[in-house]
Amino acid sequence: MKEKELISIIKSTLDSKYIGDDCAYLKDLGIVVTQDSLIEDIHFSLEYTNPYNLGYKSVMVNISDICASGAEPKYLTISLSLPSDTENKFVQEFYEGGKTACQQCGNIEIAGGDITGSKDKIYISICAIGKTGNRNISSRSYATLGQKIIISGNSGSSSAGLKLLQRGIRDFDNEFVNAHLKPRAQIDFSKNISLNTNYKYAMMDTSDGLMEALSAIAKESNVHIDIDFSKIPHSKNIEIFDNWHDLILFGGEDYQLVASVDKNCPYGIEIGKVSEGKTGVTLNIDSKSVFYSDEDINKKIYNHFK
Amino acid sequence: MKEKELISIIKSTLDSKYIGDDCAYLKDLGIVVTQDSLIEDIHFSLEYTNPYNLGYKSVMVNISDICASGAEPKYLTISLSLPSDTENKFVQEFYEGGKTACQQCGNIEIAGGDITGSKDKIYISICAIGKTGNRNISSRSYATLGQKIIISGNSGSSSAGLKLLQRGIRDFDNEFVNAHLKPRAQIDFSKNISLNTNYKYAMMDTSDGLMEALSAIAKESNVHIDIDFSKIPHSKNIEIFDNWHDLILFGGEDYQLVASVDKNCPYGIEIGKVSEGKTGVTLNIDSKSVFYSDEDINKKIYNHFK
Repeated sequence: MKEKELISIIKSTLDSKYIGDDCAYLKDLGIVVTQDSLIEDIHFSLEYTNPYNLGYKSVMVNISDICASGAEPKYLTISLSLPSDTENKFVQEFYEGGKTACQQCGNIEIAGGDITGSKDKIYISICAIGKTGNRNISSRSYATLGQKIIISGNSGSSSAGLKLLQRGIRDFDNEFVNAHLKPRAQIDFSKNISLNTNYKYAMMDTSDGLMEALSAIAKESNVHIDIDFSKIPHSKNIEIFDNWHDLILFGGEDYQLVASVDKNCPYGIEIGKVSEGKTGVTLNIDSKSVFYSDEDINKKIYNHFK
Repeated sequence: MKEKELISIIKSTLDSKYIGDDCAYLKDLGIVVTQDSLIEDIHFSLEYTNPYNLGYKSVMVNISDICASGAEPKYLTISLSLPSDTENKFVQEFYEGGKTACQQCGNIEIAGGDITGSKDKIYISICAIGKTGNRNISSRSYATLGQKIIISGNSGSSSAGLKLLQRGIRDFDNEFVNAHLKPRAQIDFSKNISLNTNYKYAMMDTSDGLMEALSAIAKESNVHIDIDFSKIPHSKNIEIFDNWHDLILFGGEDYQLVASVDKNCPYGIEIGKVSEGKTGVTLNIDSKSVFYSDEDINKKIYNHFK
């Protein structure tokens, strides 16, 4: 059983135009909405994080989804399900972290949700709402031939940080550990593009990795994307990891934004282009070219259902 | 650790005007939003229900929360977290049930969400969005002296149905079993009141029981509510249960709406009034009067954290 297989079952059952992007664009209400769930020991471990950082990151990843749509993040609701032995302090620190994330991203409020008991794991589900206003809203199906591919910042840092945490390193000032525990949603990048473009563009965050985002855009837009590995921004320090290429390409949770935009767009760092070719992503690395179909990418990325 | 204690921690941490009602009223966007989570073996058991009915009820209870605000239910997002051995059929049937609930309630769409793995329990979190338009939005703090208390329909049927299911009865045509497994959100009652009133009124659904809803309204509005037990609508058949008074008063999940409205309001069934007295609910039953403070009610109702 795999996530993508189940999503296609949901799509065909609902026959809905909304399922596809991370955010649903509800035009009649002038909003986008997204929902994400995080489950203890699947999506996070209290071995590596604390309640404050957990609240911070849970909120930030939902804000990031709104940013990927181009809308202005406005409100969140949070549903927490907690084992009965959870201390009150956990709830307080979790919400303090969430509130800090909201404040760092502008005028965002936690407007509600619920709290219930759970058997033995912590479940967090967050719904985020963004206002579309006069912004140009993206879709992963909007990439077109001739556009360039841009990214908002460094790739790979978060998964490098997770590796360090898994090795027992608890240095919260370390750039990678910090990138993993306290990612930042790309508020300004999103705002710049959605306020200053008037054409169709594709945008996604790299929550599941850069290649996965590029592959999803290629598939939904039915285009071929050419990526130049040497142009992908990353911290020089990541090169001490054995598999640093993989961290940059397939590591998730950086929450950078990657977009397919017109050539004259002045934002972000150019890493490739939409070019003639079959649907998928060609990675140009060390004078070699490797083509990845959506299926190839699915084999590489981590799947919580495996 | 109790739900209400944790909600007060969240309230004081966030210092938010939104936390309090089941729905948050986001005036600048013209919407209300609510989120509820259901966890296997805490909120439901697959011993008593099936995936279709589970999807139906999960969606219906969130639509009910929107109805309690007076807004028009419009969209839902659903987050499902499933153990890896869950069959694809579960997902399809769950969404078919959810879709049916949406269709029965009018023009409501499931617009997104996510699907992830979980350790060993099914976890469902649903976010619902309602449009406020020209409707008069309720708050549980809006009950005022002189108003009457009305209810949309029968109380107690759902918890009677749960009792039958727990006794091994699987007769899905039984009125109580049906009321428990396939409750109906009170779409018309909500619409009538919110479109045809121009004063402040309180409204809640009876998801946690009639007395709990009345007590919450009394507490948040700082009023005294007088209830005449003999006026509370219920199925005559419920009187075969030993504790049928308790089922009607404290049994949850009927998803009726209870409201405090002006005396001339022509909707619903009158069961009491807002009268002089200390904050709480007086129940008049068999020529006795029993006063319940919010604390008394909390001791009676089922708490998932206990």
